Amino acid sequence: MDEVRLIEVKQDIHADNERAADELRERLVAKKTFLLNLMSSPGAGKTSTILRTIEELRGSLEIGVIEADIDSMVDAEKVAAEGVSTVQLRTGGFCHLDAAMVAKGLDGLDLDALDVVIIENVGNLVCPAEFDTGAIRNAMILSVPEGDDKPLKYPLMFTVCDVLLVNKIDYLELSDFDIEAMRERVLRLNPKIRIFEISAKTGQGVEDWSAWLRDEAKGFLAG
Amino acid sequence: MDEVRLIEVKQDIHADNERAADELRERLVAKKTFLLNLMSSPGAGKTSTILRTIEELRGSLEIGVIEADIDSMVDAEKVAAEGVSTVQLRTGGFCHLDAAMVAKGLDGLDLDALDVVIIENVGNLVCPAEFDTGAIRNAMILSVPEGDDKPLKYPLMFTVCDVLLVNKIDYLELSDFDIEAMRERVLRLNPKIRIFEISAKTGQGVEDWSAWLRDEAKGFLAG
Repeated sequence: MDEVRLIEVKQDIHADNERAADELRERLVAKKTFLLNLMSSPGAGKTSTILRTIEELRGSLEIGVIEADIDSMVDAEKVAAEGVSTVQLRTGGFCHLDAAMVAKGLDGLDLDALDVVIIENVGNLVCPAEFDTGAIRNAMILSVPEGDDKPLKYPLMFTVCDVLLVNKIDYLELSDFDIEAMRERVLRLNPKIRIFEISAKTGQGVEDWSAWLRDEAKGFLAG
Repeated sequence: MDEVRLIEVKQDIHADNERAADELRERLVAKKTFLLNLMSSPGAGKTSTILRTIEELRGSLEIGVIEADIDSMVDAEKVAAEGVSTVQLRTGGFCHLDAAMVAKGLDGLDLDALDVVIIENVGNLVCPAEFDTGAIRNAMILSVPEGDDKPLKYPLMFTVCDVLLVNKIDYLELSDFDIEAMRERVLRLNPKIRIFEISAKTGQGVEDWSAWLRDEAKGFLAG
Protein backbone atom coordinates (compact mmCIF):
# COMPACT_ATOMS: atom_id res chain seq x y z
CA MET A 1 0.00 0.00 0.00
CA ASP A 2 1.37 3.38 -0.99
CA GLU A 3 1.74 5.91 1.76
CA VAL A 4 -0.80 8.73 1.62
CA ARG A 5 0.54 12.25 1.85
CA LEU A 6 -1.67 14.68 3.72
CA ILE A 7 -1.74 18.34 2.75
CA GLU A 8 -3.85 20.79 4.73
CA VAL A 9 -5.42 23.42 2.49
CA LYS A 10 -7.16 26.44 3.89
CA GLN A 11 -9.56 28.86 2.32
CA ASP A 12 -7.46 31.15 0.21
CA ILE A 13 -9.47 34.06 -1.09
CA HIS A 14 -8.11 34.04 -4.59
CA ALA A 15 -8.87 37.25 -6.37
CA ASP A 16 -7.62 35.73 -9.54
CA ASN A 17 -8.44 32.04 -9.55
CA GLU A 18 -8.86 32.09 -13.31
CA ARG A 19 -5.31 33.30 -13.81
CA ALA A 20 -4.01 30.67 -11.39
CA ALA A 21 -5.96 28.03 -13.32
CA ASP A 22 -4.48 29.17 -16.64
CA GLU A 23 -0.97 29.12 -15.15
CA LEU A 24 -1.59 25.62 -13.87
CA ARG A 25 -2.66 24.48 -17.34
CA GLU A 26 0.59 25.90 -18.78
CA ARG A 27 2.50 23.86 -16.20
CA LEU A 28 0.54 20.73 -17.17
CA VAL A 29 1.35 21.26 -20.85
CA ALA A 30 5.04 21.65 -20.00
CA LYS A 31 5.02 18.58 -17.75
CA LYS A 32 2.84 16.53 -20.12
CA THR A 33 0.32 15.72 -17.42
CA PHE A 34 -3.37 15.35 -18.26
CA LEU A 35 -5.48 16.60 -15.34
CA LEU A 36 -9.10 15.48 -14.96
CA ASN A 37 -11.39 17.12 -12.39
CA LEU A 38 -14.10 14.69 -11.22
CA MET A 39 -17.11 16.15 -9.40
CA SER A 40 -20.39 14.82 -7.99
CA SER A 41 -22.76 14.79 -5.03
CA PRO A 42 -21.62 12.94 -1.91
CA GLY A 43 -21.94 9.21 -2.43
CA ALA A 44 -22.41 9.20 -6.21
CA GLY A 45 -19.42 6.86 -6.60
CA LYS A 46 -16.36 9.00 -7.37
CA THR A 47 -13.84 6.78 -5.59
CA SER A 48 -15.14 3.49 -6.97
CA THR A 49 -15.31 4.97 -10.49
CA ILE A 50 -11.72 6.17 -10.20
CA LEU A 51 -10.57 2.72 -9.05
CA ARG A 52 -12.39 0.96 -11.91
CA THR A 53 -10.99 3.44 -14.43
CA ILE A 54 -7.41 3.00 -13.22
CA GLU A 55 -7.84 -0.78 -13.39
CA GLU A 56 -9.21 -0.50 -16.94
CA LEU A 57 -6.34 1.71 -18.11
CA ARG A 58 -3.54 -0.11 -16.32
CA GLY A 59 -0.62 -0.70 -18.69
CA SER A 60 -1.89 2.02 -20.99
CA LEU A 61 -1.61 5.15 -18.80
CA GLU A 62 0.04 5.89 -15.45
CA ILE A 63 -2.59 7.55 -13.29
CA GLY A 64 -2.24 9.41 -9.98
CA VAL A 65 -5.01 10.76 -7.76
CA ILE A 66 -5.62 13.91 -5.72
CA GLU A 67 -8.27 13.26 -3.08
CA ALA A 68 -10.06 16.29 -1.62
CA ASP A 69 -11.99 15.90 1.58
CA ILE A 70 -13.25 18.16 4.31
CA ASP A 71 -12.21 15.54 6.79
CA SER A 72 -11.03 11.90 6.90
CA MET A 73 -8.64 10.07 4.59
CA VAL A 74 -10.77 7.00 3.89
CA ASP A 75 -10.92 7.52 0.12
CA ALA A 76 -7.22 8.26 -0.21
CA GLU A 77 -6.37 5.16 1.81
CA LYS A 78 -8.69 3.07 -0.38
CA VAL A 79 -7.02 4.36 -3.56
CA ALA A 80 -3.47 4.04 -2.19
CA ALA A 81 -4.25 0.45 -1.14
CA GLU A 82 -4.50 -0.33 -4.86
CA GLY A 83 -0.92 0.85 -5.33
CA VAL A 84 -1.92 4.20 -6.85
CA SER A 85 0.09 7.40 -6.15
CA THR A 86 -2.27 9.47 -4.02
CA VAL A 87 -2.26 12.84 -2.33
CA GLN A 88 -4.90 13.80 0.24
CA LEU A 89 -5.96 17.44 0.36
CA ARG A 90 -7.80 18.21 3.56
CA THR A 91 -9.92 21.30 2.97
CA GLY A 92 -10.90 21.87 6.61
CA GLY A 93 -14.55 22.66 5.94
CA PHE A 94 -13.96 24.40 2.64
CA CYS A 95 -16.56 23.22 0.12
CA HIS A 96 -14.60 23.06 -3.14
CA LEU A 97 -11.10 23.12 -4.62
CA ASP A 98 -9.54 26.06 -6.42
CA ALA A 99 -6.51 26.12 -8.70
CA ALA A 100 -4.07 27.06 -5.91
CA MET A 101 -5.12 24.05 -3.83
CA VAL A 102 -4.79 21.73 -6.83
CA ALA A 103 -1.32 23.15 -7.57
CA LYS A 104 -0.31 22.18 -4.02
CA GLY A 105 -1.71 18.71 -4.58
CA LEU A 106 0.31 18.31 -7.79
CA ASP A 107 3.45 19.30 -5.85
CA GLY A 108 2.91 16.16 -3.79
CA LEU A 109 2.99 13.83 -6.81
CA ASP A 110 5.89 12.74 -9.05
CA LEU A 111 4.52 14.16 -12.30
CA ASP A 112 7.42 12.75 -14.34
CA ALA A 113 6.14 9.27 -13.56
CA LEU A 114 2.46 10.03 -14.33
CA ASP A 115 0.48 10.60 -17.54
CA VAL A 116 -2.83 11.46 -15.91
CA VAL A 117 -3.90 12.90 -12.57
CA ILE A 118 -7.53 12.59 -11.49
CA ILE A 119 -8.83 15.07 -8.91
CA GLU A 120 -11.61 13.70 -6.72
CA ASN A 121 -13.21 17.01 -5.80
CA VAL A 122 -15.28 17.62 -2.63
CA GLY A 123 -18.68 15.89 -2.85
CA ASN A 124 -20.88 18.84 -3.77
CA LEU A 125 -22.90 19.73 -6.89
CA VAL A 126 -22.82 23.46 -6.20
CA CYS A 127 -19.54 25.15 -5.28
CA PRO A 128 -17.01 23.03 -7.23
CA ALA A 129 -18.76 24.03 -10.48
CA GLU A 130 -17.92 27.67 -9.81
CA PHE A 131 -14.14 27.30 -9.51
CA ASP A 132 -11.79 26.47 -12.37
CA THR A 133 -9.30 24.01 -10.89
CA GLY A 134 -6.90 24.27 -13.82
CA ALA A 135 -7.93 20.84 -15.10
CA ILE A 136 -7.71 19.95 -18.79
CA ARG A 137 -11.15 18.29 -18.68
CA ASN A 138 -14.05 18.39 -16.23
CA ALA A 139 -16.14 15.31 -15.55
CA MET A 140 -19.12 14.71 -13.29
CA ILE A 141 -21.02 11.74 -11.99
CA LEU A 142 -24.79 11.70 -11.58
CA SER A 143 -25.94 8.52 -9.86
CA VAL A 144 -29.36 7.06 -10.68
CA PRO A 145 -30.71 7.21 -7.09
CA GLU A 146 -30.23 11.00 -7.10
CA GLY A 147 -32.98 11.43 -9.66
CA ASP A 148 -33.35 12.67 -13.22
CA ASP A 149 -34.23 16.24 -12.21
CA LYS A 150 -30.72 17.21 -11.10
CA PRO A 151 -29.87 19.09 -14.36
CA LEU A 152 -32.81 21.40 -13.59
CA LYS A 153 -31.61 22.10 -10.07
CA TYR A 154 -27.83 22.28 -10.48
CA PRO A 155 -27.49 23.54 -14.07
CA LEU A 156 -24.02 25.07 -13.75
CA MET A 157 -22.40 21.73 -12.91
CA PHE A 158 -23.83 20.13 -16.05
CA THR A 159 -22.79 23.17 -18.10
CA VAL A 160 -19.11 23.23 -17.12
CA CYS A 161 -18.44 19.51 -17.61
CA ASP A 162 -17.06 17.83 -20.74
CA VAL A 163 -18.38 14.45 -19.75
CA LEU A 164 -21.20 13.06 -17.63
CA LEU A 165 -21.02 9.59 -16.13
CA VAL A 166 -24.46 8.26 -15.18
CA ASN A 167 -23.40 5.86 -12.44
CA LYS A 168 -25.28 3.10 -10.58
CA ILE A 169 -27.03 2.31 -13.84
CA ASP A 170 -27.75 -1.11 -12.29
CA TYR A 171 -30.32 0.70 -10.07
CA LEU A 172 -32.25 1.90 -13.13
CA GLU A 173 -34.92 -0.80 -13.08
CA LEU A 174 -35.71 -0.18 -9.42
CA SER A 175 -36.18 3.54 -9.77
CA ASP A 176 -38.39 5.93 -11.69
CA PHE A 177 -35.31 7.65 -13.15
CA ASP A 178 -36.20 8.68 -16.73
CA ILE A 179 -32.92 8.48 -18.57
CA GLU A 180 -34.24 10.04 -21.77
CA ALA A 181 -35.69 13.01 -19.90
CA MET A 182 -32.37 13.42 -18.06
CA ARG A 183 -30.44 13.31 -21.36
CA GLU A 184 -32.66 15.95 -22.90
CA ARG A 185 -32.26 18.24 -19.88
CA VAL A 186 -28.49 17.84 -19.90
CA LEU A 187 -28.09 18.32 -23.66
CA ARG A 188 -30.24 21.45 -23.54
CA LEU A 189 -27.74 22.93 -21.06
CA ASN A 190 -24.65 21.56 -22.76
CA PRO A 191 -25.06 20.15 -26.29
CA LYS A 192 -21.40 19.08 -26.51
CA ILE A 193 -21.27 16.99 -23.32
CA ARG A 194 -20.44 13.28 -23.68
CA ILE A 195 -22.67 10.97 -21.66
CA PHE A 196 -21.69 7.46 -20.57
CA GLU A 197 -23.88 5.07 -18.58
CA ILE A 198 -21.77 3.10 -16.13
CA SER A 199 -21.85 0.97 -13.03
CA ALA A 200 -18.68 1.23 -11.00
CA LYS A 201 -20.00 -1.77 -9.04
CA THR A 202 -20.55 -4.21 -11.91
CA GLY A 203 -18.11 -2.61 -14.35
CA GLN A 204 -20.80 -1.98 -16.99
CA GLY A 205 -19.85 0.85 -19.35
CA VAL A 206 -16.47 1.45 -17.72
CA GLU A 207 -14.63 0.29 -20.86
CA ASP A 208 -16.30 2.89 -23.11
CA TRP A 209 -15.79 5.75 -20.69
CA SER A 210 -12.18 4.74 -20.08
CA ALA A 211 -11.55 4.59 -23.83
CA TRP A 212 -12.82 8.17 -24.11
CA LEU A 213 -10.52 9.26 -21.28
CA ARG A 214 -7.56 7.43 -22.83
CA ASP A 215 -8.14 9.09 -26.20
CA GLU A 216 -8.46 12.54 -24.64
CA ALA A 217 -5.33 12.04 -22.56
CA LYS A 218 -3.28 10.58 -25.44
CA GLY A 219 -4.35 13.46 -27.69
CA PHE A 220 -3.22 15.95 -25.06
CA LEU A 221 0.05 14.16 -24.33
CA ALA A 222 0.89 13.95 -28.04
CA GLY A 223 -0.05 17.61 -28.65
CA MET B 1 -52.78 23.86 -6.70
CA ASP B 2 -51.49 26.68 -4.53
CA GLU B 3 -49.60 29.43 -6.27
CA VAL B 4 -45.88 29.40 -5.61
CA ARG B 5 -44.30 32.67 -4.56
CA LEU B 6 -40.82 33.26 -5.87
CA ILE B 7 -38.32 35.27 -3.84
CA GLU B 8 -34.86 35.96 -5.23
CA VAL B 9 -32.21 35.86 -2.52
CA LYS B 10 -28.70 37.02 -3.15
CA GLN B 11 -25.51 36.40 -1.26
CA ASP B 12 -25.65 38.70 1.72
CA ILE B 13 -22.34 38.73 3.58
CA HIS B 14 -23.78 38.56 7.05
CA ALA B 15 -21.22 39.49 9.64
CA ASP B 16 -23.61 38.43 12.31
CA ASN B 17 -25.65 35.49 11.07
CA GLU B 18 -25.81 34.07 14.57
CA ARG B 19 -27.50 37.19 15.90
CA ALA B 20 -29.93 37.16 12.96
CA ALA B 21 -30.68 33.49 13.71
CA ASP B 22 -31.36 34.23 17.38
CA GLU B 23 -33.64 37.12 16.43
CA LEU B 24 -35.50 34.84 14.06
CA ARG B 25 -36.02 32.29 16.84
CA GLU B 26 -37.48 35.03 19.05
CA ARG B 27 -39.90 35.86 16.25
CA LEU B 28 -40.85 32.17 15.94
CA VAL B 29 -41.54 31.94 19.67
CA ALA B 30 -43.74 35.04 19.51
CA LYS B 31 -45.57 33.77 16.43
CA LYS B 32 -45.80 30.18 17.74
CA THR B 33 -44.25 28.73 14.60
CA PHE B 34 -42.03 25.65 14.79
CA LEU B 35 -39.31 25.88 12.14
CA LEU B 36 -37.51 22.74 10.94
CA ASN B 37 -34.42 22.98 8.73
CA LEU B 38 -34.07 19.89 6.51
CA MET B 39 -30.71 19.28 4.84
CA SER B 40 -29.16 16.55 2.66
CA SER B 41 -27.12 15.80 -0.45
CA PRO B 42 -28.81 16.36 -3.79
CA GLY B 43 -31.26 13.58 -4.52
CA ALA B 44 -31.46 12.08 -1.02
CA GLY B 45 -35.23 12.57 -0.98
CA LYS B 46 -35.97 15.84 0.81
CA THR B 47 -39.06 16.74 -1.22
CA SER B 48 -40.65 13.29 -1.10
CA THR B 49 -39.96 13.03 2.64
CA ILE B 50 -41.60 16.42 3.21
CA LEU B 51 -44.66 15.36 1.22
CA ARG B 52 -45.01 12.07 3.12
CA THR B 53 -44.58 13.84 6.46
CA ILE B 54 -47.22 16.46 5.67
CA GLU B 55 -49.61 13.68 4.60
CA GLU B 56 -48.92 11.79 7.85
CA LEU B 57 -49.52 14.87 10.02
CA ARG B 58 -52.54 16.23 8.13
CA GLY B 59 -55.30 17.16 10.59
CA SER B 60 -52.79 17.31 13.43
CA LEU B 61 -50.50 20.19 12.37
CA GLU B 62 -50.70 22.86 9.66
CA ILE B 63 -47.40 22.75 7.79
CA GLY B 64 -45.91 25.20 5.29
CA VAL B 65 -42.74 24.81 3.24
CA ILE B 66 -39.83 27.04 2.22
CA GLU B 67 -38.08 25.58 -0.81
CA ALA B 68 -34.51 26.73 -1.48
CA ASP B 69 -33.01 26.12 -4.89
CA ILE B 70 -30.19 27.52 -6.93
CA ASP B 71 -32.42 27.32 -9.93
CA SER B 72 -35.78 25.87 -11.00
CA MET B 73 -39.04 25.67 -9.09
CA VAL B 74 -39.81 21.98 -9.66
CA ASP B 75 -39.83 21.04 -5.97
CA ALA B 76 -41.96 24.01 -4.94
CA GLU B 77 -44.46 23.25 -7.68
CA LYS B 78 -44.59 19.59 -6.57
CA VAL B 79 -45.28 20.61 -2.97
CA ALA B 80 -47.79 23.32 -3.88
CA ALA B 81 -49.64 20.81 -6.08
CA GLU B 82 -50.50 18.97 -2.85
CA GLY B 83 -52.24 22.08 -1.55
CA VAL B 84 -49.40 23.08 0.76
CA SER B 85 -48.46 26.74 1.37
CA THR B 86 -45.07 27.08 -0.30
CA VAL B 87 -42.48 29.78 -0.86
CA GLN B 88 -39.64 29.33 -3.31
CA LEU B 89 -36.31 30.96 -2.45
CA ARG B 90 -34.05 31.15 -5.47
CA THR B 91 -30.48 31.46 -4.23
CA GLY B 92 -28.93 32.29 -7.62
CA GLY B 93 -25.90 30.03 -7.24
CA PHE B 94 -25.53 30.50 -3.50
CA CYS B 95 -24.87 27.14 -1.86
CA HIS B 96 -26.78 27.41 1.42
CA LEU B 97 -29.38 29.44 3.31
CA ASP B 98 -28.65 31.87 6.12
CA ALA B 99 -31.04 33.32 8.69
CA ALA B 100 -31.71 36.49 6.68
CA MET B 101 -32.82 34.47 3.67
CA VAL B 102 -35.07 32.29 5.81
CA ALA B 103 -36.59 35.40 7.40
CA LYS B 104 -37.52 36.60 3.89
CA GLY B 105 -39.04 33.21 3.17
CA LEU B 106 -41.16 33.39 6.33
CA ASP B 107 -42.40 36.82 5.24
CA GLY B 108 -43.96 35.07 2.25
CA LEU B 109 -46.06 32.69 4.39
CA ASP B 110 -49.13 33.34 6.55
CA LEU B 111 -47.62 32.27 9.87
CA ASP B 112 -50.91 32.78 11.74
CA ALA B 113 -52.33 29.88 9.75
CA LEU B 114 -49.34 27.57 10.21
CA ASP B 115 -47.97 25.53 13.14
CA VAL B 116 -44.85 24.27 11.44
CA VAL B 117 -42.65 25.48 8.59
CA ILE B 118 -40.18 23.07 6.99
CA ILE B 119 -37.19 24.53 5.15
CA GLU B 120 -35.92 22.39 2.29
CA ASN B 121 -32.35 23.68 2.24
CA VAL B 122 -30.06 23.60 -0.83
CA GLY B 123 -28.92 20.04 -1.63
CA ASN B 124 -25.43 20.10 -0.14
CA LEU B 125 -23.81 18.28 2.81
CA VAL B 126 -21.16 20.94 3.34
CA CYS B 127 -22.14 24.61 3.43
CA PRO B 128 -25.66 24.42 4.95
CA ALA B 129 -24.15 22.82 8.08
CA GLU B 130 -22.10 25.96 8.70
CA PHE B 131 -24.96 28.47 8.80
CA ASP B 132 -27.57 28.69 11.54
CA THR B 133 -30.85 29.32 9.72
CA GLY B 134 -32.72 30.27 12.90
CA ALA B 135 -34.58 26.96 12.90
CA ILE B 136 -35.83 25.38 16.13
CA ARG B 137 -34.60 21.93 15.03
CA ASN B 138 -32.18 20.73 12.37
CA ALA B 139 -32.78 17.51 10.48
CA MET B 140 -30.83 15.73 7.78
CA ILE B 141 -31.39 12.89 5.38
CA LEU B 142 -28.73 10.35 4.47
CA SER B 143 -29.93 8.04 1.72
CA VAL B 144 -28.68 4.45 1.59
CA PRO B 145 -27.16 4.70 -1.92
CA GLU B 146 -24.84 7.47 -0.67
CA GLY B 147 -22.94 5.01 1.51
CA ASP B 148 -22.29 4.43 5.20
CA ASP B 149 -19.02 6.44 5.24
CA LYS B 150 -20.66 9.86 4.97
CA PRO B 151 -20.36 10.65 8.72
CA LEU B 152 -16.58 10.30 8.33
CA LYS B 153 -16.47 12.69 5.39
CA TYR B 154 -19.05 15.32 6.33
CA PRO B 155 -18.87 15.27 10.13
CA LEU B 156 -20.18 18.79 10.77
CA MET B 157 -23.55 18.04 9.16
CA PHE B 158 -24.09 15.04 11.43
CA THR B 159 -22.96 17.08 14.44
CA VAL B 160 -25.35 20.02 14.02
CA CYS B 161 -28.49 17.93 13.43
CA ASP B 162 -31.05 16.86 16.04
CA VAL B 163 -32.38 14.08 13.87
CA LEU B 164 -31.09 11.86 11.07
CA LEU B 165 -33.45 10.22 8.60
CA VAL B 166 -31.86 7.26 6.85
CA ASN B 167 -33.93 7.30 3.67
CA LYS B 168 -34.30 4.80 0.80
CA ILE B 169 -34.07 2.05 3.41
CA ASP B 170 -35.77 -0.15 0.80
CA TYR B 171 -32.40 -0.12 -1.07
CA LEU B 172 -30.61 -1.65 1.92
CA GLU B 173 -30.63 -5.25 0.68
CA LEU B 174 -29.16 -4.27 -2.67
CA SER B 175 -26.26 -2.33 -1.27
CA ASP B 176 -23.28 -2.93 0.98
CA PHE B 177 -24.44 -0.13 3.31
CA ASP B 178 -23.56 -1.20 6.86
CA ILE B 179 -26.24 0.41 8.98
CA GLU B 180 -24.65 -0.52 12.31
CA ALA B 181 -21.29 0.95 11.28
CA MET B 182 -23.09 4.11 10.12
CA ARG B 183 -24.95 4.38 13.45
CA GLU B 184 -21.74 4.03 15.41
CA ARG B 185 -20.01 6.71 13.34
CA VAL B 186 -22.93 9.10 13.74
CA LEU B 187 -23.37 8.54 17.46
CA ARG B 188 -19.65 9.07 18.04
CA LEU B 189 -20.04 12.53 16.49
CA ASN B 190 -23.39 13.29 18.08
CA PRO B 191 -24.56 11.02 20.91
CA LYS B 192 -27.91 12.84 21.26
CA ILE B 193 -29.03 12.56 17.64
CA ARG B 194 -32.27 10.66 16.93
CA ILE B 195 -32.06 8.23 14.03
CA PHE B 196 -35.06 7.01 12.04
CA GLU B 197 -34.95 4.57 9.14
CA ILE B 198 -37.49 5.54 6.52
CA SER B 199 -38.53 5.07 2.92
CA ALA B 200 -40.29 8.09 1.51
CA LYS B 201 -41.22 5.86 -1.44
CA THR B 202 -42.94 3.02 0.44
CA GLY B 203 -43.84 5.00 3.57
CA GLN B 204 -41.86 2.70 5.88
CA GLY B 205 -40.83 4.44 9.11
CA VAL B 206 -42.57 7.71 8.22
CA GLU B 207 -45.09 7.28 11.06
CA ASP B 208 -42.38 7.07 13.76
CA TRP B 209 -40.41 10.01 12.43
CA SER B 210 -43.57 12.10 12.03
CA ALA B 211 -44.61 11.27 15.59
CA TRP B 212 -41.25 12.60 16.79
CA LEU B 213 -41.72 15.79 14.78
CA ARG B 214 -45.28 16.21 16.06
CA ASP B 215 -44.15 15.83 19.68
CA GLU B 216 -41.28 18.29 19.23
CA ALA B 217 -43.56 20.81 17.55
CA LYS B 218 -46.39 20.43 20.08
CA GLY B 219 -43.92 20.82 22.95
CA PHE B 220 -42.60 24.03 21.39
CA LEU B 221 -46.06 25.41 20.60
CA ALA B 222 -47.29 24.72 24.14
CA GLY B 223 -44.14 26.21 25.73
